[in-house]
Amino acid sequence: MPHMPTSDGRPAWRAQILTLFPEMFPGPLGYSLTGQALDAGIWSLQCVALRQFGIGRHLAVDDRPAGGGAGMVMRADVLAAAIDEARRQAPDLPGIVLSPRGEPLRQETARELAAGPGVMLLAGRFEGIDQRVIEGRHLREISIGDFVLSGGELAAMVLMDACVRLLPGVLGAPDSLVHESFETGLLEYPQYTKPREWEGRAIPEVLVSGDHGKVDAWRRRAAEALTRERRPDLLKSLSMAKVDPEKNG
Amino acid sequence: MPHMPTSDGRPAWRAQILTLFPEMFPGPLGYSLTGQALDAGIWSLQCVALRQFGIGRHLAVDDRPAGGGAGMVMRADVLAAAIDEARRQAPDLPGIVLSPRGEPLRQETARELAAGPGVMLLAGRFEGIDQRVIEGRHLREISIGDFVLSGGELAAMVLMDACVRLLPGVLGAPDSLVHESFETGLLEYPQYTKPREWEGRAIPEVLVSGDHGKVDAWRRRAAEALTRERRPDLLKSLSMAKVDPEKNG
Repeated sequence: MPHMPTSDGRPAWRAQILTLFPEMFPGPLGYSLTGQALDAGIWSLQCVALRQFGIGRHLAVDDRPAGGGAGMVMRADVLAAAIDEARRQAPDLPGIVLSPRGEPLRQETARELAAGPGVMLLAGRFEGIDQRVIEGRHLREISIGDFVLSGGELAAMVLMDACVRLLPGVLGAPDSLVHESFETGLLEYPQYTKPREWEGRAIPEVLVSGDHGKVDAWRRRAAEALTRERRPDLLKSLSMAKVDPEKNG
Repeated sequence: MPHMPTSDGRPAWRAQILTLFPEMFPGPLGYSLTGQALDAGIWSLQCVALRQFGIGRHLAVDDRPAGGGAGMVMRADVLAAAIDEARRQAPDLPGIVLSPRGEPLRQETARELAAGPGVMLLAGRFEGIDQRVIEGRHLREISIGDFVLSGGELAAMVLMDACVRLLPGVLGAPDSLVHESFETGLLEYPQYTKPREWEGRAIPEVLVSGDHGKVDAWRRRAAEALTRERRPDLLKSLSMAKVDPEKNG
């Protein structure tokens, strides 16, 4: 689907997925916010089936690791053929491979990618992919966390979801983005709603006081305390970046 | 599906998902490794639809945040009713809520959870969930990374995938687990496979030498160099844990 314009004339944010399992997509991304945005043409999703670039009668995409060891490694030549075809159709998309060896995905990465034309995502399987295609096709390696998945597809979905919800028109209230975790460099403050008392637990008094200044101050203190307790590493990078906590407060 | 025994008599690892979108599951988890393991009864998946515990004629599950602000917050009473029903059916599963405010998911978290009876996963939506249900139902908050998703469902799938692939009988070669990223505390060394030369790039000579000692040494050095370059934070926690790098080398 080549850059269908959205109703306001912007070209759709474009996601290409290179995968052995195109039938997994859109999967969970076809529902709710991301699904509505897909239907509305705010973003588009194209799967490139790696198998069709496989070699020989069995369309092999992998072979045994050089140097020995368990499992199989995806071939550079097969992946490069798929990447080249994807780039022929959409030359302007940054090429990304999902891998636990990559740079950790952060909210700022999602903002950066959401602001661009889209992404070309390579989802690996098996023991990994031949290192030479990462170098030869200048792929950016991104990791969604310090854990191992059975393939890159779920990681690709996570990256797309994090980006798509930031596209203009996807979230009903853009205001929602300002206060959420990481947008201020802090974890989000605790939330409460009705009923006012539940199982003997009351909503903190200040939140039902109607005093917006006090509510804001309480929330900022709560976010800071939570971040200090759980993720002091975030505070450290916050102070290094000299971010003014009042700016989004 | 109550604890169906697998072919070797172990009870299945059990995942319960409390979600507004049960139709998202198993989704990507229904394919490949995790799908085959699901079909084989190595693990089981049960969705609890939060909507059926909603309140009033419209089965409301959320309400406006106390103290004001954008979006909606999921109600403690509705979520508690769903959790209590899930626990009635499987009292022994640790209760987890996926949230960017939680402890970061690590490979060791996946190992810990995979070694237990399973997980009860609450997938939030909207602005978040009422803090009191997290405290009142002793939920463990786990985050898959420092980014925000449109809901907890994808995060729940990531957690399940990371666990399920560690269950006995899921991966063909248990040996694969030893060398992969994080299992030795390091990022994984680069992989190569045929062809021996591709676009002028050759497989490193040592990997085709047939000398297993040299291959192992090269891979360990490569993993250490890559980790030092990209993720010095992992080396720091490795030296703090006084892990012997030879142990898995």
